[in-house]
Parts: sequence; C-alpha cells; structure tokens
Amino acid sequence: MRAIIVGSGAGGLTTASTIRKYNKDMEVVVITKEKEIAYSPCAIPYVIEGAIKSFDDIVMHTPEDYKKERNIDVLTETTVVDVDSKNNKIKCIDKDGNEFEMGYDYLVLATGAEPFIPPIEGKDLEGVFKVRSIEDGRAILKYIEENDCKKVAVVGAGAIGLEMAYGLKKRGLEVLVVEMAPQVLPRFLDPDMAEIVQKYLEKEGINIILSKPLEKIIGNEKVEAVCVDGKLYDADMVIMATGVRPNVELAKKAGCKIGRFAIEVNEKMQTSIPNIYAVGDCVEVVDFITGEKTLSPFGTTAVRQGKVAGKNIAGVEAKFYPVLNSAVSKIGELEIGGTGLTAFSANLKRIPIVIGRAKALTRARYYPGGKEIEIKMIFNEDGRVVGCQIVGGERVAERIDAMSIAIFKGTTAEELANMEFCYAPPVSMVNEPLSLAAENALKKLGK
Amino acid sequence: MRAIIVGSGAGGLTTASTIRKYNKDMEVVVITKEKEIAYSPCAIPYVIEGAIKSFDDIVMHTPEDYKKERNIDVLTETTVVDVDSKNNKIKCIDKDGNEFEMGYDYLVLATGAEPFIPPIEGKDLEGVFKVRSIEDGRAILKYIEENDCKKVAVVGAGAIGLEMAYGLKKRGLEVLVVEMAPQVLPRFLDPDMAEIVQKYLEKEGINIILSKPLEKIIGNEKVEAVCVDGKLYDADMVIMATGVRPNVELAKKAGCKIGRFAIEVNEKMQTSIPNIYAVGDCVEVVDFITGEKTLSPFGTTAVRQGKVAGKNIAGVEAKFYPVLNSAVSKIGELEIGGTGLTAFSANLKRIPIVIGRAKALTRARYYPGGKEIEIKMIFNEDGRVVGCQIVGGERVAERIDAMSIAIFKGTTAEELANMEFCYAPPVSMVNEPLSLAAENALKKLGK
Repeated sequence: MRAIIVGSGAGGLTTASTIRKYNKDMEVVVITKEKEIAYSPCAIPYVIEGAIKSFDDIVMHTPEDYKKERNIDVLTETTVVDVDSKNNKIKCIDKDGNEFEMGYDYLVLATGAEPFIPPIEGKDLEGVFKVRSIEDGRAILKYIEENDCKKVAVVGAGAIGLEMAYGLKKRGLEVLVVEMAPQVLPRFLDPDMAEIVQKYLEKEGINIILSKPLEKIIGNEKVEAVCVDGKLYDADMVIMATGVRPNVELAKKAGCKIGRFAIEVNEKMQTSIPNIYAVGDCVEVVDFITGEKTLSPFGTTAVRQGKVAGKNIAGVEAKFYPVLNSAVSKIGELEIGGTGLTAFSANLKRIPIVIGRAKALTRARYYPGGKEIEIKMIFNEDGRVVGCQIVGGERVAERIDAMSIAIFKGTTAEELANMEFCYAPPVSMVNEPLSLAAENALKKLGK
Repeated sequence: MRAIIVGSGAGGLTTASTIRKYNKDMEVVVITKEKEIAYSPCAIPYVIEGAIKSFDDIVMHTPEDYKKERNIDVLTETTVVDVDSKNNKIKCIDKDGNEFEMGYDYLVLATGAEPFIPPIEGKDLEGVFKVRSIEDGRAILKYIEENDCKKVAVVGAGAIGLEMAYGLKKRGLEVLVVEMAPQVLPRFLDPDMAEIVQKYLEKEGINIILSKPLEKIIGNEKVEAVCVDGKLYDADMVIMATGVRPNVELAKKAGCKIGRFAIEVNEKMQTSIPNIYAVGDCVEVVDFITGEKTLSPFGTTAVRQGKVAGKNIAGVEAKFYPVLNSAVSKIGELEIGGTGLTAFSANLKRIPIVIGRAKALTRARYYPGGKEIEIKMIFNEDGRVVGCQIVGGERVAERIDAMSIAIFKGTTAEELANMEFCYAPPVSMVNEPLSLAAENALKKLGK
C-alpha cells in the first residue's frame, strides 16, 4: 500500500506523519516543489523583524529527518503535473526535468494556495515580492541589503501585511501600507477593533492608506514608486500581501469535485473520489456558525485536517469539525485575536446579534506590567456566544481559545458572566475581562 | 430599607457595590474591624517580594471613595458583636469602645476566615506572623527591617506559603519551608505536578521539608529557632501559612444554620434566615464535579458570590453555580494553575479517571522566549474532562480558564483533541498543548 501526499506544508506533512503514527507498514511519499520543507510560513514576518535570528531557525526538519525518524520519503523540487485517477497514477517532473510516473493507493492533495497578485502595471518589476515561502523571505532580506532599501510599500493590511509592515519598520525601513478595504484586518476584526490596531501602527510610525487600491508600480527595471489615488509615493520595494487563492488545478485534473471556493471534501477530508483526500488551504470547509461553505487558510486548520485525513487513511475513524476560523497575530506590542462571527459578517448575513464589551487590564491594577485589553463579544438572540475579538498587550491567544471552546459548546452570556475564572494579581484581574464583556451583553439581552 | 454588610473583603464590598448598582435608594452600610479596606490579600506576598513597591499600592479604594462614588457607608475599626435576627438588629462596638445598635432589612455576613494557627509551643513568640491582612504584611516587613532578620521558617506549603517563601527569598532571607503533607501545594496539585514546583523552588535556593509538622518554635521573647523532626533550625521569624478556618461565630449567634464546613447558603446566597445572606470564605459551596459540600476560599469566589447576593437583595434574580475551585499562582518564573478534580481526590473518592498529559512549549520552538509548559488533564470514564493542572513559564491562567469552561460545559477528550486553537509563532504552538493532552487521553480511552 502506498500513500502519496502532494505538498509539504503543514497539512501535507501532518497527514504523512499521522498515517505513519497509525500504520507502520504503508509506504508514505511526500512530493513537493519546494526545496526546504517543515517550516512555518507564519514565522516569515518575525524573521524580517529580527525577533527570530535567521530563516534557518524556522526550518524544523529536513527530508532526511523524515526518512530516518518516520520512514517517510520526501521528494523535493519535484512537481506533480498530472493525476490519472482511473488508474491511480500520478505523473511528476523532478528538478532535472525528468518525467516519471508513480502509482498510489491513496492520494492526498495538500497543494495549498497561491498568492493572489492583482494584475496591475509594474507587478513584474524587480523589487516586487510576495510572502509565501521561505524563499520569498530570504529574497526580501537579500534585496533590502543589496539595494540598501529605505522605503517599502506593503499592499494589503491583513495579518501578514501588517506583520510584514511592522517587521520592515523594525528593520529601519520607512513603511507605507495600502489597503482597499476601509479598515485594517478586514476579514478578522470589526472596524472598531481594527482601529485600535491601526492607531498603534500609526503611532509606531507606519503610514496607512485605507479604502484605496494600489494603482500601479512605477520603475525602470526596479521598483521606484507606487501610485495610490493618483499620488506617487517613493518606494524601493513592494510587498504584495494581497491574499491567496486555493490551488485546485491538480484536483481538477484528477476529476475531484470543486466547490464554490476550493476542493470539496467530506468530514473525513475525502474528495469526491474516495481514495483521494485533500487538506489545507486548497479545500473548502463548513463555517460553524452559519453552516455555509468557507475557506480556512490557517496553519492550525491544515494541521487538524492532516490529522483527520491521516487517521482515516490509516483506518482510524476521525472527523473534521466545522470551523470558527480562530486566529491570532502579534504585531509589535499588540496581540490581536478573533474567533467565530464578527458583527460585520453578522450584519451582512442579517443575523441579529447583541454585543458585549469590556476594556480592562491583564493584571491587577496595582501589579506592574499590566497591559490594556479590549474585548468585543458577539452573542446571538438566544444569548449564546458566537464570536469574540480581543486586542491587548498580552494573554490574548489563550482567551481566544477559551472563547472558541465556549462558542463550540454553546455557552450563554449568563454562564460566561458567572463563569469561574482563576485569579492571582500578577496574571489576571479579580474580575476577568471575559466575564465583564458577557455581563455587559447580559444587560442588553434583558437578562 | 437598609442593608448591612459585615466584612469588607472581596465578598462584602462586592455585595455592597452590587446592591447599589441595581438599587439607588437602599441604604447600604459596610461594617468592618479593619482599618484599611478594598485591598487584595493575595497581593501581600508580591509586596514582600518587591514586585509591588509598597502596601499602599494595593489599597484600591478608601471608605471615603465608597461614600462619595457609590453612597455606601463604611464603618471601619468597628466590630459586630451580636445579631438579634428576630428583631433584625445588630450590636456593634466602635474603636473607642462605644456600643451601639443598628437595625437592618437585609444583613450580609461576609465575615471571612481566620488563619488557623496550630497549637504548638512558641506560637505566641514575637516574630511569629500570619498572612491575612495588610496589617500582617506591614508587620512582617517592619519586623524584618527592625530585627535585621536573616532566616525565616515558613510553615505550610500551600499557595500563600510558597508565594511568601519565594518573596522572602527574593528579599534576601534564607528560607525554610515546613509542610506536613508529602508534597507542596497539596490541595491544589497532584504530587507529580507539585514536584515540578518543588524542584524549581529548591533550585532557587529554598529549603523544603515535607511530611513533617513543625514541632515547636524556640526563643526567649523572640523567635530564635524552629524544631522539625527533632532537629533545630535557626530562624529569626516564622510565617504561619497553615490555612484558614471559616469565621461562623456571628452566623451562629444569629441562628443561621451551619453546615459541615461553614455557613449553609442556597444558590441565592441566602442563609437559613431569609433576610440574612452570607458570602465569601465563611460559607460552604457545592463542588461541581462531586456534588458534595466544600469550601472555596478564593477572592474570585467571594466576588462572584457578592454579585449574586447583591443582585438578589436588589431584587434581580441571580444564582451562584457549583464551583471548580479554579486557582492560579505565580511563584517566581513559574505560573501554576488548577481547576476541577485532581487525580488524588478522584482516587480518594473512588471516581474512575483517565489522565492525559502533554509537555510542550508556550511559543513556536524557534521563537525566542518560549517557556516549558506541562499539562495534566483528568477525564471521567465517559471521556469528559473533569480537571486540569498546568505548570509553566507563561500563559497558564487563561489555559486554566479555557479548561474551566470546558469542564463546565461537559467537553469530551475527542472534542478537545480536535478543538480549534489559534496560532501565531510568538504566542503559541501550531499543536496547542491542551489539544495534545486531550489526544494523549483519547488513546487511553480507546477512542
């Protein structure tokens, strides 16, 4: 029996390791275009910032590690160009251009997503970068050094865009962020919460232009300026953080059903072809709150899907649950997290909601080092929590996790307001901010 | 209408403020023996340590603040000596020895707990201290300075004992901890988890003697040594952190029913006498897991009870839920938390359990500053989580809170293993340790 996994991101490698964990005999082969594997793309901005010393640090394992420790074969710099799902065969091309075929019993498509680069003038100039692979990160650092870059334009104010903006600022560059939406972090936070992040970055000296697209990139071979709203801004380089598109080409070739956004899978992570599974950024998932199809392009989602696919392939039943799209980012001194529905999406979908808010500290008022923390909690009409956004100086991620559990388990505002939260002056307040936010909603719910 | 609250701890003051929040007209009077109010006794060890500059810093409000901002009268240094519950009257003595009576419509007993000092030889020597009130804290610091103390014995290795031990060590004293139980933090952690804390403190240079009582304190007027297991240890002072006993004298005088451990209350925080309520360390509560009566001597419990009592007195219905006795402590570099059932109590009560463990880091492996974190999760036979203990270098409190929600909502090991946890390299691992601990249990549950 042979399982072939196409792609060496979090989803692909987790699937491979999970199959091996539950089945010692199956042959497991990972095929990837990349040269380096087993690194976290989320870490790229932090290397740029200098918080992590070097790109070498973020590579966790080599292909040799996988062979030695887990008996998993990893073929790097190899592209899968076709799938013959009738005969259970794939066609590949290795780095020297040699074509070869390989049969499989199970195929796992972990083909990820490609950066979406808007089709604007100047996008192919030298000095325009995307932020997807470790090669992109290395190339950005190299270009800054070789060209002594002073000014950068970051296009897109999502988490990666803002993390990169902050990282480049810390590296000493002058940074301009251009975002089409009227707020930063548009998919992640409501406008009111996003404003806290925006103000912080502006205070840190980052220029942010909202509600405007990047019109063109100007330069002669290399980037020299960007044009926004008819105005020119000097720039030595441009970082495109304009989102990603699921990579579904191979799935199409295999004949797998493609859904509204990406590859369709069932809760076992099986595609419409039973012995072909798919995991990670290339699949679509179900939204826990709305029940609608959505994307969940997060490393954590890929890991959880990889575990489910791997177990099922190894004959252990497992199910992937609908997602809350819980996420966190650290940008400078701010920790920013969100889970479940935002008020913005609720309004779009005409879901009636009640909002609870709290603004508090992360430690007892008198304990040094406490940071501000601001919470926005979203409840449905029944008083059950359906979403939460938090921006604060510390201890945000675990609070988001607590709220993810609360949402998943249908917890009410009354339960959260009365919930038992632990307390010690150096690490919390005697009145937990999550509880205060729920109490605030409780009043509006008329309870 | 007049509500009298006896006691100015977290429970008493929260009750008073909550009544006022929901009722602008009722007369609200707080009567307390103490001179200073509205401080957190949990902060005392951190002032000793020097993490908080002075005892003045931990006093959050004065009696005058309460009068001015909330129209609440606070009578300090006044003792309530009797309750005539038939005629709804109390008898008091003020600091000058004047006796007076006062009528009430509602009476709230927030009489707290008294330190339990074992009846050993030498307990009344100069230099023996308890750690209950801000006066105790001030007296300890003064005694150290005036007597140039070099060596201290801390009796009791509960959270306050260990926090004090660490604080005194940081202040430059040589510290010996003496604990009768065979482990530190006996009510809070299982022995295996307690060992991590013990080893850390020993590495920090604190001597710990377990499984032995303090036999006597030796000295001529002032403490000179302590005797443990027949051996003498030099000591300039002794800190008694030997636990507390609920203060139920006044409740007895009033004729309120006393339960197995403390004052009996219903879920509205009413005693057996309908217009007398009780909150805080002087009441007994219901254990969420076992359904048995228990104590919950925590500031957070007192606050939550105060809110419930205050609302009910003001005519707003509210219920106090059974407790998990969720707690956290920060001792030096370690954050230590627990919630729900321990394996030790489960075994005592013959409740069959399954344990899940994880040892991981608090940040991505390559991200600087990550700390070790160790998790022990307790599940019942059905696979539902009933307890969790965590010791780690950071981000423990909120994980405990997440687990309290999980326990409260009957979350299973399978749900936790598949739960969506947020991830960014500076603040978490892509495989959340809570999820790994649940996964570990899942295997043992045969699921």
